[in-house]
Amino acid sequence: MATLHDDKKARLDNDAADQLITSDNPEHPANLIPSLCAKFWTLGWVTGTGGGCSIRDEDLVYIAPSGVQKELMKNTDIYVLSLSAQEPTLKQRSYLRSPPCYKPSQCTPLFLAAFTRRNAGCCIHTHSQWAVLVTLLLEAQGPGLDKVFEINNIEQIKGFARGTTKQGNLGYHDTLRIPVIENTPHEEDLTEYLEEAMYRYPDTYAVLVRRHGVYVWGDNVHKAKTMCESLDYLFQLAVEMKKLGIPWISDIARVAPDRP
Amino acid sequence: MATLHDDKKARLDNDAADQLITSDNPEHPANLIPSLCAKFWTLGWVTGTGGGCSIRDEDLVYIAPSGVQKELMKNTDIYVLSLSAQEPTLKQRSYLRSPPCYKPSQCTPLFLAAFTRRNAGCCIHTHSQWAVLVTLLLEAQGPGLDKVFEINNIEQIKGFARGTTKQGNLGYHDTLRIPVIENTPHEEDLTEYLEEAMYRYPDTYAVLVRRHGVYVWGDNVHKAKTMCESLDYLFQLAVEMKKLGIPWISDIARVAPDRP
Amino acid sequence: MATLHDDKKARLDNDAADQLITSDNPEHPANLIPSLCAKFWTLGWVTGTGGGCSIRDEDLVYIAPSGVQKELMKNTDIYVLSLSAQEPTLKQRSYLRSPPCYKPSQCTPLFLAAFTRRNAGCCIHTHSQWAVLVTLLLEAQGPGLDKVFEINNIEQIKGFARGTTKQGNLGYHDTLRIPVIENTPHEEDLTEYLEEAMYRYPDTYAVLVRRHGVYVWGDNVHKAKTMCESLDYLFQLAVEMKKLGIPWISDIARVAPDRP
Amino acid sequence: MATLHDDKKARLDNDAADQLITSDNPEHPANLIPSLCAKFWTLGWVTGTGGGCSIRDEDLVYIAPSGVQKELMKNTDIYVLSLSAQEPTLKQRSYLRSPPCYKPSQCTPLFLAAFTRRNAGCCIHTHSQWAVLVTLLLEAQGPGLDKVFEINNIEQIKGFARGTTKQGNLGYHDTLRIPVIENTPHEEDLTEYLEEAMYRYPDTYAVLVRRHGVYVWGDNVHKAKTMCESLDYLFQLAVEMKKLGIPWISDIARVAPDRP
Repeated sequence: MATLHDDKKARLDNDAADQLITSDNPEHPANLIPSLCAKFWTLGWVTGTGGGCSIRDEDLVYIAPSGVQKELMKNTDIYVLSLSAQEPTLKQRSYLRSPPCYKPSQCTPLFLAAFTRRNAGCCIHTHSQWAVLVTLLLEAQGPGLDKVFEINNIEQIKGFARGTTKQGNLGYHDTLRIPVIENTPHEEDLTEYLEEAMYRYPDTYAVLVRRHGVYVWGDNVHKAKTMCESLDYLFQLAVEMKKLGIPWISDIARVAPDRP
Repeated sequence: MATLHDDKKARLDNDAADQLITSDNPEHPANLIPSLCAKFWTLGWVTGTGGGCSIRDEDLVYIAPSGVQKELMKNTDIYVLSLSAQEPTLKQRSYLRSPPCYKPSQCTPLFLAAFTRRNAGCCIHTHSQWAVLVTLLLEAQGPGLDKVFEINNIEQIKGFARGTTKQGNLGYHDTLRIPVIENTPHEEDLTEYLEEAMYRYPDTYAVLVRRHGVYVWGDNVHKAKTMCESLDYLFQLAVEMKKLGIPWISDIARVAPDRP
Repeated sequence: MATLHDDKKARLDNDAADQLITSDNPEHPANLIPSLCAKFWTLGWVTGTGGGCSIRDEDLVYIAPSGVQKELMKNTDIYVLSLSAQEPTLKQRSYLRSPPCYKPSQCTPLFLAAFTRRNAGCCIHTHSQWAVLVTLLLEAQGPGLDKVFEINNIEQIKGFARGTTKQGNLGYHDTLRIPVIENTPHEEDLTEYLEEAMYRYPDTYAVLVRRHGVYVWGDNVHKAKTMCESLDYLFQLAVEMKKLGIPWISDIARVAPDRP
Repeated sequence: MATLHDDKKARLDNDAADQLITSDNPEHPANLIPSLCAKFWTLGWVTGTGGGCSIRDEDLVYIAPSGVQKELMKNTDIYVLSLSAQEPTLKQRSYLRSPPCYKPSQCTPLFLAAFTRRNAGCCIHTHSQWAVLVTLLLEAQGPGLDKVFEINNIEQIKGFARGTTKQGNLGYHDTLRIPVIENTPHEEDLTEYLEEAMYRYPDTYAVLVRRHGVYVWGDNVHKAKTMCESLDYLFQLAVEMKKLGIPWISDIARVAPDRP
């Protein structure tokens, strides 16, 4: 039975928790996630509460809740958890701060996979129609051919990092490869497929989910966001190329030598 | 012949009526309808004064007027009526508050059908081109095949509630079914077709209108708006799938078991 | 040779002229044209200084200048002329107010045709790609078939007035007909073609210009703007219908009787 | 080893450098580049840090840095250099003002080519998908046919200047020709191809880069920006024409004589 003392402590705890998402700095994760999500909504990435975004600041992870209208999100809607305090084998997570009236996002274990396995600082999940259409086009090519999206010789590929274990960005003549994983009825069940794809493609910064969307991560918000934009640009271009009968992979003669 | 006393009473009545649409709270229906409609205008849902939106707060129903530019609407443009005070068999309705210079929306009986027959809290009507194109594509399949839009195995389907009589939302492997009703020269005449579709599809939260658009409702503004977004996303995706030769219904092997 | 007296008079004249375009009222034509044009720019109607908008208030006509970036226009950019003071046979026009640094719009005689021959209160000219594509699709059907755009059985048609000499708007089963005129190297030379189309289609509120765009007018700003939106919606829908193999004219069985 | 005197001098230098990018005037290049780039981002021209914009004011050249999110740019991000102080044969450039934390844009030598060889006042580089798709469609026509984009008899062509050595803008019946150059792994290596295209097309104000985007310049910001808009409109229209089977070049009978 709660005593006056307990009540006071609970209030203090709430105050301390709310300090985690209170800042005048627009770059603070609790302010940045809402402003990013509002921008993503206008891009059609997080329609109808789909998709999401999570930012890691050292050990603290900030995550948008489930089922929120992404263009209306506020800092007070944000969950906060300690990355090191999570039990990886348990699906039950402990939160430093939970907003009232919401449930945790089903994307949470996927965001955590990017943070723990790739040391990412930010992970973005979109339901972009271009991502979905790319997976549908791959699927239509038949079994076995639907496992990886490949495109080369497009300038925007240079907006993508070469890999977790490599320096710099991809070059114009390089082939960008984004693995495609199966979708599952429950988003949390995607985690093992995502981790398997991370294992098989150690340099990838993104994974497509069949008939669902894409997960993109980066060392920080800037890198995750600009790679996600570049990738969405390439998905849209790929769909338009398909409509016009232009193949995604081409053999362009090099007109100038590569330089280091 | 009006007396001084009548004049004063009329003024008081107007004041009382205007209080129904006057609030500092942006979540008040008379403020929310204009801000939603401005957003819908940017999405192409309410172009050229088409479409509309109505919110029910207990017994009070707030409706945008006919023929108003949706991105410019103000709270003072809103009609208010009492749901319980309407005579269902009469097309003549009595309004608690009527804006000067406007006519009631022809969508009114359709909005009322969602409120009375489904206990909805919000109903949105769009002229989205994607909705119209989906009905045209169904029509092109021939008579009998144009009565229901069906799509499955797309993640965004999970943004749609399972049904009025069921718990939770649809799953990834479920088939979303939206009935299509005939269009009529006068929008009010759609009401019986809408009600018939509600009767035949007791769990649907939306009805397509052939060559016209879609009606979507929900228990509250949040649900109606996010389901309308998810549906429009699916309509757009379906049109693009058709351009690319990809069928709307597929048989995807389940890679993970369903969980309760 | 200018005297001090002349200089003072010229300044007074400029002051009087500037009063024509100075108002705190956002509905004043000199404020409304810039805000409308900024909105039209986001719709892709007035890209690259193309297109324009003119409003008539009784005898005064307000026109945007030639070659201005439409999303950046200011009230001080606006020309004003007296409709009754124009010599219809002369191409040289006299302006009550001319902005410095600009030239009059080549659309001026076309706007004036809508004002004098149809008593319009507002005329909008867009370079919308959907309008251009519709004229290209008609042209591809062969000579003689490219003279009028026709579509029926689409709800948005009801956003269009039945005609200058008729009451009310078109019905769902009516066929909307928009004549197409030839383009000319100089926009001013379009005037006689526009006037001829007005003569042959006495009820039309819009004229398509082949490979160029569309002129839409109305009794006031509200009607011109909402009809222009509805028409652009129909042009875009028509292009998408063509891509999907759906004809613009159909024979839909009437499911409910027309009512007066 | 730095002395107190050196430190003070360095601070003064920084102050003087920062004065180059500090102004209350929104038309100042250091303010205009960020506002233009934010607008270009909404148009999809500078997605994922791609593309850019440079303005020349007499001898001073203002350039956005490499890898910046274009919709978030600030005046303090801008590089400034003296055009006359550059060694044309050296790739190493000296900057009057360099922002901390950034690298110079790889587009710099291409912007400088527009300023030095064409006396341009502004140069815009976009990654617009329409530009990329036009180069892909030309490439699909086969070798030799991919060297120039040509379109005629579209009104929007009149938004393009006739040429560096000619008066006025193109006419409706004129053919707009935009040369296409090869893409190179390193953007700086494009410079010689760009300069060669400038030499072979002495009147062009734009050059397409295969599978990459477009460079557009003009005598001032207004001209470069409005020509870039007109060109992007034409690229988009050309892609839609291709989808609908309509050729880019047509032989339209002149219905009215050309006038001087």
